[in-house]
Amino acid sequence: MEQTQTLESASTMEPQAADVERLVRDMARAGRSAQRVLARMSTAEKAAALMAAAAALRADAPRILSANAQDIAAGEARGLSGAMLDRLRLDAKRLEGIAAAIENVARLPDPVGQEIDRSEALAGMVLVRRRIPIGLIGIIYESRPNVTADAAALCVMSGNAALLRGGSEAVHSNRAIAAAMASGLASAGVPAEAVQLIPTQDREAVGAMLRAAGLVDMIVPRGGKSLVERVQNDARVPVLAHLDGICHTYIHAAADPAMARALALNAKMRRTGICGAMETLLLDAAFPGSQDVVGALIDAGCELRGDARAQALDPRITPATPEDWNTEYLDAILSVAVVDGVEAAMEHIARHSSGHTEAIVTQDQAVADRFLAEVDSAIVMHNASTQFADGGEFGLGAEIGIATGRLHARGPVALEGLTTYKWQVLGNGQTRA
Amino acid sequence: MEQTQTLESASTMEPQAADVERLVRDMARAGRSAQRVLARMSTAEKAAALMAAAAALRADAPRILSANAQDIAAGEARGLSGAMLDRLRLDAKRLEGIAAAIENVARLPDPVGQEIDRSEALAGMVLVRRRIPIGLIGIIYESRPNVTADAAALCVMSGNAALLRGGSEAVHSNRAIAAAMASGLASAGVPAEAVQLIPTQDREAVGAMLRAAGLVDMIVPRGGKSLVERVQNDARVPVLAHLDGICHTYIHAAADPAMARALALNAKMRRTGICGAMETLLLDAAFPGSQDVVGALIDAGCELRGDARAQALDPRITPATPEDWNTEYLDAILSVAVVDGVEAAMEHIARHSSGHTEAIVTQDQAVADRFLAEVDSAIVMHNASTQFADGGEFGLGAEIGIATGRLHARGPVALEGLTTYKWQVLGNGQTRA
Repeated sequence: MEQTQTLESASTMEPQAADVERLVRDMARAGRSAQRVLARMSTAEKAAALMAAAAALRADAPRILSANAQDIAAGEARGLSGAMLDRLRLDAKRLEGIAAAIENVARLPDPVGQEIDRSEALAGMVLVRRRIPIGLIGIIYESRPNVTADAAALCVMSGNAALLRGGSEAVHSNRAIAAAMASGLASAGVPAEAVQLIPTQDREAVGAMLRAAGLVDMIVPRGGKSLVERVQNDARVPVLAHLDGICHTYIHAAADPAMARALALNAKMRRTGICGAMETLLLDAAFPGSQDVVGALIDAGCELRGDARAQALDPRITPATPEDWNTEYLDAILSVAVVDGVEAAMEHIARHSSGHTEAIVTQDQAVADRFLAEVDSAIVMHNASTQFADGGEFGLGAEIGIATGRLHARGPVALEGLTTYKWQVLGNGQTRA
Repeated sequence: MEQTQTLESASTMEPQAADVERLVRDMARAGRSAQRVLARMSTAEKAAALMAAAAALRADAPRILSANAQDIAAGEARGLSGAMLDRLRLDAKRLEGIAAAIENVARLPDPVGQEIDRSEALAGMVLVRRRIPIGLIGIIYESRPNVTADAAALCVMSGNAALLRGGSEAVHSNRAIAAAMASGLASAGVPAEAVQLIPTQDREAVGAMLRAAGLVDMIVPRGGKSLVERVQNDARVPVLAHLDGICHTYIHAAADPAMARALALNAKMRRTGICGAMETLLLDAAFPGSQDVVGALIDAGCELRGDARAQALDPRITPATPEDWNTEYLDAILSVAVVDGVEAAMEHIARHSSGHTEAIVTQDQAVADRFLAEVDSAIVMHNASTQFADGGEFGLGAEIGIATGRLHARGPVALEGLTTYKWQVLGNGQTRA
């Protein structure tokens, strides 16, 4: 435990680990009961409840902004970086954005109850696979207070209860947002325990969530690599997570040079800090426009680290170390390698990719088809910027995260990824021979 | 470690834990390489390879049966129970059944490459979700040697490599089957490492598989509760498992009495040892045929343990203890409770079910619809025997298991459950604004 934090409640006593464990398990049980009510609500009822939650958030704006000011003051006193403070900070416009995002979720198609497929059993029963909520979703996140509202809204719309554990930096903001949402939801008939924020910042609470197999159905960590790694290592509960976004763009010999330059610039420089940003550029040795592409990137302010052949393209490219090929910079830095053909590009990707998003730029459809078929990442793109790796851009309306694991859901995860299914067997008295 | 076993290879030396770990990780890496080849094979190529594997199994019958005789002799010397020996034993007919099952898998529709859906991104790219293999599947199983062939066939047909760890009782049988299959597969162009059996029976090998996050993509345990619990507790790799099958049948007031009796008898007594066997019977207090149903069960040789109201139905019903409601007997024993209406039945199920299979017997469609919607198990049935909970009966052709977790796949899992998907993004130069 790096830092001991007090149970921020009426009491100032330090809670015992066993108390925290009991608190989390009691909250999980309450969440499960609430979820059974939520699971029976219609799409219109859930949407109305989210509209009420958004309205409550707007009505509570003064209280939420003053709670946020407390967090900002505490963060400044603790010496948080400017970037951290910016992630933490709310203002009227950002709060309106949070409320509007809840309303957007309320307008999404409801996956619950959807028939996936229908078939016939050997003995004649009709078999229907139908989508249902997963149950109780635990969300463990860091400093962005909007996650409280986004995650809760996605869970409610998909019929799941949410057990939220936010970062200590945002504790007052998170509580104010969660309280507003819960009151809005309750006014529309959603049980108060459908959305619960764990009241203590004791780190033991995270451990208790991760150990709660049978009570918490899935954990979604949203935060930096150390948080996600801890969750993946310690969880006894299924985890939907992404670790790294080491995204590659491969520019094939038959790429359109102007398109290649535009895509490389956009994939790297539009926003360098998002998980869909390109981190490695693979230039085909037979692509004639490589000097132009790397020159444009450097001119745009990007630092390039290359292998020997890439360095030969521009004297401003510095040597890449072996670690560079496995690094998610999240910054204006790019590793660049020159490869011989699509096979070599796919070999490089298989060795170094984190399974998030990879793109090929080419006018040769056969080569593109091969890349799309054989590269094994969650998202594979042809002639598009890796920065599009986003649930909103994919038309999902929102996302709870981008999953880079292989089971359940991959890539941007929104409402459908928060459901599972059951088999309904419709018989007329069949017994098995 | 309950029992120390030697590395059964040319060497008789006891392997060090680190050696076992290295062995397993090297095999996993080799399996991953082989899987990349398998992933590119066409449906026809995979089917032909499985046909060759079945032929090799038939050709090797003498060797396999003599290996099995070794296992049987060792099992008898160790005092294995008759039931265990029966599970272990192969003869010409069972071996033919194993070969035929491989051929059946070869004839199943191939999910790999299937388009799940197609949509359009905000910026105009076409988005295709397409099924792909999961990767390397670890299968940890106990004494039935047919699992070696069944699991390997399902993995190969779905483009996955298999890393198999069978029980020590069946070690010679498993090796002979795996060797025959590998030679058949290799003759048809599947790399030998696509199906590997871990050569040592050292229990440390199981631990090494469970820790191999990033190398093994999914573990499927097939065996008793203690095996599955160990796997679920220790795995750092996603697990597709089922623990218990505490299946309920609820006979509603409006059930057809003859159908109710037939379904109850079949659900319990057809085969008592399978996971889909009914373990608890819920009789509605308003159902007029209860005495007939319990009488028929007792007359068929079933021991009934009931609550007070159930005991009043027949003097031969003994009192149930609280544990009875949570017990998977896998035997001719049944717990029986009398409940007041569908709500009370669903409450009992929510408290005691293991999430496997539950059935309602009623002629009232509205009540059936409510049960089918609200009971949260992997399989919910109306007017059918719980014994139908089986991939073969569901028309899936085979199953690798019945999953009672909530993520990825639920209920009978066959080829589709051994796939995941990727997003293919088809653009024409789009950059993100």
